Amino acid sequence: MTQKEHAEKDIITEEMKIVAQNEDVSAEFIKEGIKKGEIVIPKNKKHKIKKLCGIGKGLSIKVNANIGASPLHLNIAEEIEKLKIAEKYGADTVMDLSICPVIKDLRKEILKISSIPLGTVPIYEVGFKLSQKKKQLEEMKIDDILEVIKNQAEDGVDFMTVHCGVTLATLERLEKEKRVLDIVSRGGSMLVHWMKKNKKENPMYEHFDKILEIAKEYDITLSLGDGFRPGSTIDSSDRAQFHELIILGELAQKAWDFSVQVMIEGPGHIPLNEIEMNIKLEKSLCHNAPFYVLGPLVTDIAPGYDHITSAIGGALAGYFGADFLCYVTPAEHLKLPSVEDVKEGVIASKIAAHAAEVAKGNKKAILKEYEISKARKELNWEKQFEISIDPEKSRKYREISGIKNEDVCTMCGDFCAIKQINEII
Amino acid sequence: MTQKEHAEKDIITEEMKIVAQNEDVSAEFIKEGIKKGEIVIPKNKKHKIKKLCGIGKGLSIKVNANIGASPLHLNIAEEIEKLKIAEKYGADTVMDLSICPVIKDLRKEILKISSIPLGTVPIYEVGFKLSQKKKQLEEMKIDDILEVIKNQAEDGVDFMTVHCGVTLATLERLEKEKRVLDIVSRGGSMLVHWMKKNKKENPMYEHFDKILEIAKEYDITLSLGDGFRPGSTIDSSDRAQFHELIILGELAQKAWDFSVQVMIEGPGHIPLNEIEMNIKLEKSLCHNAPFYVLGPLVTDIAPGYDHITSAIGGALAGYFGADFLCYVTPAEHLKLPSVEDVKEGVIASKIAAHAAEVAKGNKKAILKEYEISKARKELNWEKQFEISIDPEKSRKYREISGIKNEDVCTMCGDFCAIKQINEII
Repeated sequence: MTQKEHAEKDIITEEMKIVAQNEDVSAEFIKEGIKKGEIVIPKNKKHKIKKLCGIGKGLSIKVNANIGASPLHLNIAEEIEKLKIAEKYGADTVMDLSICPVIKDLRKEILKISSIPLGTVPIYEVGFKLSQKKKQLEEMKIDDILEVIKNQAEDGVDFMTVHCGVTLATLERLEKEKRVLDIVSRGGSMLVHWMKKNKKENPMYEHFDKILEIAKEYDITLSLGDGFRPGSTIDSSDRAQFHELIILGELAQKAWDFSVQVMIEGPGHIPLNEIEMNIKLEKSLCHNAPFYVLGPLVTDIAPGYDHITSAIGGALAGYFGADFLCYVTPAEHLKLPSVEDVKEGVIASKIAAHAAEVAKGNKKAILKEYEISKARKELNWEKQFEISIDPEKSRKYREISGIKNEDVCTMCGDFCAIKQINEII
Repeated sequence: MTQKEHAEKDIITEEMKIVAQNEDVSAEFIKEGIKKGEIVIPKNKKHKIKKLCGIGKGLSIKVNANIGASPLHLNIAEEIEKLKIAEKYGADTVMDLSICPVIKDLRKEILKISSIPLGTVPIYEVGFKLSQKKKQLEEMKIDDILEVIKNQAEDGVDFMTVHCGVTLATLERLEKEKRVLDIVSRGGSMLVHWMKKNKKENPMYEHFDKILEIAKEYDITLSLGDGFRPGSTIDSSDRAQFHELIILGELAQKAWDFSVQVMIEGPGHIPLNEIEMNIKLEKSLCHNAPFYVLGPLVTDIAPGYDHITSAIGGALAGYFGADFLCYVTPAEHLKLPSVEDVKEGVIASKIAAHAAEVAKGNKKAILKEYEISKARKELNWEKQFEISIDPEKSRKYREISGIKNEDVCTMCGDFCAIKQINEII
């Protein structure tokens, strides 16, 4: 039985108990959330996960890190380093987005080493396999897709992005509306390619039931991909985007009817004034299914700094109710991220998630704010470092400033406001 | 005559014309804004400025970079490098916050080299001079302060932070209310030290008229410092903070009566859900005087990444109406920033300001979004780099990925969504 089937039968599972404990809520709360589809626990029945996580309404905001090799940059050891650094800095899940010859080996290695849930986008492997056979993408059959999904499920993948909501009806709207940057979703573009060449409906939409059957068998959480997400703030919140969201809501309901856990994926590139609306629309159209957003990036002009543009959008999205933030690294739009880029990306997303929690009144988050502020008041540097999001970096900054025994820092020296005030009030 | 006196007499100055041209508004609009106190043009009569800027209602959001040496880190050449890099990445103004023996030499050097307005916090020099004379801070006289202000005005400083709103009445409230982190403003703490030791009112509050006289003589824009700004999200938006803001509003009105240009300084550390209220309160209590915020930082737990916590807060503050963002660097709370930290800080603030402009519907900002998105669609890498906020970094990222003539990047290779879609729709 899936977590959702258990919840529907009012059975509390071990996984629900663990998530409840992590979140400081009751197991009953988790069970009810899963029953309603508002909470998911991504965990393949075949996969042992050390650090389980729940995602959804009433739970803390989670962060995903994307790793994975590409045809132009392929190094398993490097990807494993990325996995390790993502875990070190607090990623709650990892997705392997590889498109390359070693895709299966890397996946197995990640599943062996990682302590957190693993997500994939199966169509990438489908596409790569076709290219290896010198076949065109338009020759893809639904069985090719189902075979890869089944295979990855058997390996132990916990959640999968499936672009089942990419349909001809939405595509027609997108083409009529005219975007600056049409489609930027890799999976979405593959399916649109197939649909245009074959003049047929998306096979993943038409055969959604078959995907649900596999998902149910392994309790894979489906993450309904947003193939038409805007890739520019100019294209944001348009008819294509929200038409697809309506379809994703319909598919989510269908998944629930199958007792399959499901999340909704969201943009992407959105000006900051549209974020609240985007989150509220998802909650409304998809009946509170957990919302998994990519960034969002609040401007397009900062390649090299898209971890920052995403931290701005992610903090706002989290505050307004996004449940799950997909990180963005400084390498976004430019290249495959390095290990250092992955670190920067995870930390920026964790800052966004934490800032949103503080604003939402999360007790644990606020306690951390209090504790680091108290350490500052006490000029207790080591304590500040310990509580900080990156103890190594904050400690190193102080060390390179050449400060040794002083209780102040090189910013103000003895003119330190805190020191002055401690002496007087 | 000051810019404000001119505006009151309905005279349009050369400076107003230049600012109007930069902002794509009429000189009449600028004049009216200055008349009402809603716009300032920081420019000392004695200072020739190549890149003038207007700050306030209806104008684009400006960014300030703080530089300056400290007693524990003193290197004029390094500070000049910081000035240059801040200008290169688009800082609109620079503040020299030095507290050290070379304070006057550095100021003169900055005024000679810089093309943008210069701000200072005169009480720092007052405090440092006393310490050189082995005097205690509490021995400070109002004439010591006025002498430094006059002296800096004569040098050509364009705007000055004066903590005239630090009063006994607010201090009493702060002490009763109990904060985690009391006072974190360096200038504020110096004055509170003086007030506690002497059991007297802040001399800069009591003799505000005398400060106004000097400001009027040189047309210095006064930036009313927020000595009681919260230094922790736990302390944010409390009675001490807003009591001071009421006083700053009163002082602003007094400055206007003297035809002196004035800005209001704001926090600091605020959870993101309180930013809108903070901006609206300033606009309301200070009758739309331009609002100059430090960050704001939306969480305290990220030393080493406070350029990111500030970019989140700055983007929101700018969207809700803050006029002027003081940058925060990754070194904040840890040490005096390096040249690289200054670069990171300026870029993060520029991203925040730009994201706010996009959300506010600023045409120039949106045109940039369109142009870079179009370049992405065309897989025109060089054009993307040119438009991006840091062409060197974005270009370098692509170069180190080893890509040469390919039209795609190492993220997706030939599975690039844009490439796929360009071939098909």
